[in-house]
Amino acid sequence: MNKLNQATLLPLKHMDIQDTYWTHYMNLIRHVVVPYQWEALNDRIPGAEPSCAIQNFRIAAGDIQGEYHGMMFQDSDPAKWLEAAAYLLEIGANPELERLADETIELIARAQHEDGYLNTYYTVKEPGKRWTNLAECHELYCAGHLIEAAVAYFHATGKRKILDVVCRLADYIDSIFGTGDGQIRGYDGHQEIELALVKLYQATGEKRYLLLSKYFLDERGQDPYFFEAEWEKRGRTGYWNNNLLNRQYCQAHKPVRSQNSAEGHAVRLVYMCAGMVDVAVETQDEGLLEACRELWKNMVSKRMYITGGIGSKAQGEAFSLDYDLPNDTVYAETCASIGLIFFAQRMLRVEANSEYADIMERALYNTVLGGMSLDGRHFFYVNPLEVWPEACEKNENFTHVKPTRQGWFACACCPPNVARLLASLGQYIYTQKDSTLFTHLYIGGQGQVEMNGRKIRVVQESKLPWAGHVSLTVHTEENNEFTLALRIPSWSGKPEITINGASFKMEDHLLNGYVYIHRIWKNDDVIQLILPMSVLRFRANPLVRANIGKVALQRGPLVYCLEEADNGANLQQIVLPSDVELKVESDHELLGGVQVIVAEAERIDQQAWGTGLYQDGTVIYNNPQQIKFIPYYAWANREVGEMSVWVRERA
Amino acid sequence: MNKLNQATLLPLKHMDIQDTYWTHYMNLIRHVVVPYQWEALNDRIPGAEPSCAIQNFRIAAGDIQGEYHGMMFQDSDPAKWLEAAAYLLEIGANPELERLADETIELIARAQHEDGYLNTYYTVKEPGKRWTNLAECHELYCAGHLIEAAVAYFHATGKRKILDVVCRLADYIDSIFGTGDGQIRGYDGHQEIELALVKLYQATGEKRYLLLSKYFLDERGQDPYFFEAEWEKRGRTGYWNNNLLNRQYCQAHKPVRSQNSAEGHAVRLVYMCAGMVDVAVETQDEGLLEACRELWKNMVSKRMYITGGIGSKAQGEAFSLDYDLPNDTVYAETCASIGLIFFAQRMLRVEANSEYADIMERALYNTVLGGMSLDGRHFFYVNPLEVWPEACEKNENFTHVKPTRQGWFACACCPPNVARLLASLGQYIYTQKDSTLFTHLYIGGQGQVEMNGRKIRVVQESKLPWAGHVSLTVHTEENNEFTLALRIPSWSGKPEITINGASFKMEDHLLNGYVYIHRIWKNDDVIQLILPMSVLRFRANPLVRANIGKVALQRGPLVYCLEEADNGANLQQIVLPSDVELKVESDHELLGGVQVIVAEAERIDQQAWGTGLYQDGTVIYNNPQQIKFIPYYAWANREVGEMSVWVRERA
Repeated sequence: MNKLNQATLLPLKHMDIQDTYWTHYMNLIRHVVVPYQWEALNDRIPGAEPSCAIQNFRIAAGDIQGEYHGMMFQDSDPAKWLEAAAYLLEIGANPELERLADETIELIARAQHEDGYLNTYYTVKEPGKRWTNLAECHELYCAGHLIEAAVAYFHATGKRKILDVVCRLADYIDSIFGTGDGQIRGYDGHQEIELALVKLYQATGEKRYLLLSKYFLDERGQDPYFFEAEWEKRGRTGYWNNNLLNRQYCQAHKPVRSQNSAEGHAVRLVYMCAGMVDVAVETQDEGLLEACRELWKNMVSKRMYITGGIGSKAQGEAFSLDYDLPNDTVYAETCASIGLIFFAQRMLRVEANSEYADIMERALYNTVLGGMSLDGRHFFYVNPLEVWPEACEKNENFTHVKPTRQGWFACACCPPNVARLLASLGQYIYTQKDSTLFTHLYIGGQGQVEMNGRKIRVVQESKLPWAGHVSLTVHTEENNEFTLALRIPSWSGKPEITINGASFKMEDHLLNGYVYIHRIWKNDDVIQLILPMSVLRFRANPLVRANIGKVALQRGPLVYCLEEADNGANLQQIVLPSDVELKVESDHELLGGVQVIVAEAERIDQQAWGTGLYQDGTVIYNNPQQIKFIPYYAWANREVGEMSVWVRERA
Repeated sequence: MNKLNQATLLPLKHMDIQDTYWTHYMNLIRHVVVPYQWEALNDRIPGAEPSCAIQNFRIAAGDIQGEYHGMMFQDSDPAKWLEAAAYLLEIGANPELERLADETIELIARAQHEDGYLNTYYTVKEPGKRWTNLAECHELYCAGHLIEAAVAYFHATGKRKILDVVCRLADYIDSIFGTGDGQIRGYDGHQEIELALVKLYQATGEKRYLLLSKYFLDERGQDPYFFEAEWEKRGRTGYWNNNLLNRQYCQAHKPVRSQNSAEGHAVRLVYMCAGMVDVAVETQDEGLLEACRELWKNMVSKRMYITGGIGSKAQGEAFSLDYDLPNDTVYAETCASIGLIFFAQRMLRVEANSEYADIMERALYNTVLGGMSLDGRHFFYVNPLEVWPEACEKNENFTHVKPTRQGWFACACCPPNVARLLASLGQYIYTQKDSTLFTHLYIGGQGQVEMNGRKIRVVQESKLPWAGHVSLTVHTEENNEFTLALRIPSWSGKPEITINGASFKMEDHLLNGYVYIHRIWKNDDVIQLILPMSVLRFRANPLVRANIGKVALQRGPLVYCLEEADNGANLQQIVLPSDVELKVESDHELLGGVQVIVAEAERIDQQAWGTGLYQDGTVIYNNPQQIKFIPYYAWANREVGEMSVWVRERA
């Protein structure tokens, strides 16, 4: 038996989410987000940035004449849309969506060259220049997204058309890249194809795809620096000319196995890490996995926002340094948190440690959900923890921080990424390893799984994120001996577990954050899990300068924030006494129905201060003020205003 | 009699600084700074950015062959050096320096064209393109600095050579610019020539220079936007292409008389304001002066750092918005505080209000002195109030913030600006208006002035900035009836004044921060002024987000700061209890001899926290720690480390 052994995912077709909180999102993705994004890709959203992504494929396919428009990696947007559509089709039939997807697949196939090459930017705009600017021009990144979409569509529909397209593409790429004579000894500027090739390997059984993925990982960070040689070969020209010679930016400063701190472009790093875990497992490479653990540890213990956001600086959309987590100049790209979820889920499949699931959940409920408006039609690229709208307009340090979500972006990586993640949410709830079924997320619905060769159904009900009440009912035709492993979230007080009403002493069955319940399960056995959800006052490590003297509230998986709409402007003037009661109240009318946290806090008396800029001897007075926190994910769904996650605390 | 009536400056030749604190700086400027800068201008500082400024003049003069190097406004550096040299020569003979200055003047004169034009960039690098890029290429700015130097040199030596050069230059400029047929209806991209032309008018009596200055001010901010038209005419090309169409950047968003908030590039604004005051006074333009008051008010009451720094953002070296005063991403260019002093001094000459002098003093003792190292050979361009050196390396938001002073800069505006300001410091101590002699700064030495047609000498002794003991002795051959007006600094507690040992009740003689002592002065009359100097705890307006919950210490004119060298790293972990005693101690060995402030403060117990990034329920413990503040101007004269002016306060 292999030492490194990933738990398996439950296929989406075996998952049916029926949840008081998430069903809304699933419907939104199916009925609003994915259709809306199709309109966006076809340039039919009034007032939003035109995408031209489908049009580029039409031109490349020879259907129409025209010029290429958009980013050179625009192809990845339809690919991510197709992947999201595939997940929706796997969950439930939708002939109209399938027709659109099939048409898109036909279009993509027509844009493919004889030799397998497929990229509309180089086909339409820069013919003859394939593979001349791997650092910036993202051909392999686009290929990776198309491969992910193809594998998902194949799983969803059984149709091979797009899978065949990407196999030809991957075979062509395999012929071009490598250490052989005449091959390009290079790698992708933006990691993505690594994890995609492992998916293709798993879907087809063709080991060359796995080896190609491993090759890309092994080559990265070697000397001499490939992207510098490539740049010299181009005559020192570039597309953006930013970061071209910055090896950290694309994680090429060291061989990947030697990297132990989260550096450079955040999305690239987490996509790379996801691929590293996959390759480590498939090739039994403990050294490679150890690098993943090191990178994970640095990222989540020194370089992550409490919202699960990563990447503290706009320049290079990148990590900066340990404990440098400014709330206002932050980047925290939506895609980076999605990639963090990919990375976390893969680590979790290798080692069932609830820390991975905790962070997956943190990123999902806060940054990813916050990345999309409640109406499903507006998106954040950057997810700040503190916003002063006027400064966003007038101080360029904050130009990248938008106080309102946008309809679409010139660089539209985030919206379809949210769509594909949420469409595949069913895959994040359970994993199975041998005869253990792990529950990572508490999301209601039904999952089918085979245990000891026999099908069972697990029906989950959950009141999260508003209450910590969860039940899991096992439906089995015959008694079946296996283990149910339940995650105990880090935000939970002391949980209570009952099985068929009888108390279960969890203490002796707890390992790395999971309660392992081993028994012979009978039909209709019910586990009740009570996860106490008090309001938690989080403080940050005192090495984090931005949060010194401040507190952030969290309840269950939800991080909370103050908004100007509820609390007035100048949120910095609010002080939360450390001993004050934090009351949870339901507000069914507010923001689609949320629980708010209210507290008798204090606010600086501006009038008592007067108007001077600096005054000596003037005491700062506080007046009582009731303040209201809302869940962070729901911010910026009302009028434009200030927002702050971290609030000053008075001891 | 004119309504607007500026107090006059005492000529430097009538001033002799002999001061316990400032004599050191005067010697430094004479013996180190000015000679060092001469070496820098001649590219003889090993390891520093080469200037090439003198070389450019040699090429333009035809002395040598070669290519132009450096910024297109490199000419302004020798001009500022010459101005500093002129002030030194006015104070005291120095044949070697005068020989160098004369040679430089000969060189400059040889670089002048027949028609009066003088600019080495356009002469050497872009012949035929004069006046095609006023927005960026700074021909008028360089002309302004040369005019200032020429007037200073003429006053110092009586030699007309350079004055004649700049008159020909100004006459030529006057022929080119204006509203007449064939004239360019434009203005300078970087203000400077406005104030210079007024100096030239005052030195020569030629009113056309004053009118040209007024023309430049009147034209700025008119529609259509000149720099856009100019850019169109150039075929939409530019030198930097930053800020070309940003009208606020160069204060051209409104006519200058309508401007009421400090916007755009900070140095440009304060240079412009200085010119506006001059023109307002010389043309009796109360409306123009009112705009100066509005701009002053907005700048100092909403957009100025406690150190007298201005310009809160690196982008455009500019103001941002009211109360946006980040300590770490700050710009606060040395030159901007020098320009603020120019502006303050001119306002002070029009209206004797100590607020102008307070801010002049604040900028001088903190940002300007802090802009130069104690050895006189290293300079800051940017003057942060909070520094985390590792972040300056790794987070581009702080790239412009240097934790150590540099030997020279590619853009070397600041070092010679410090030199010319400090060389002319004698002009900032007194002003005279009718039969009142104002004392604005308490700096020891002797000043000669005529009162009622008779010469008197005022000998000042001062223990500032370390103690608030000042004496002023009047030396007069005959009894003389006039008023001595003494500034009561805002940092002073209740002052005591004695005249010849007898107490003087100042309450009835106080107006706008000055005590007016009118009497018939006899020889050897002595005023003793005791300015109590306790340590002041300054807090910022609660609208300033960066300083909320924090305190800054000031004693006398000096703002204090914490440095890592004295207090360890992670200065954010220090908390100053609001009731703790702040002890002043002299340390003659430290940083050239300073008084430090020590306090029994507290520091977060990092060990008690542990290593988690976010923890709920973990209380933050503080341990006692003695901390030491040093004067801000003296920071960064030891090893590289953190610094912070604002310190967290515990109520």
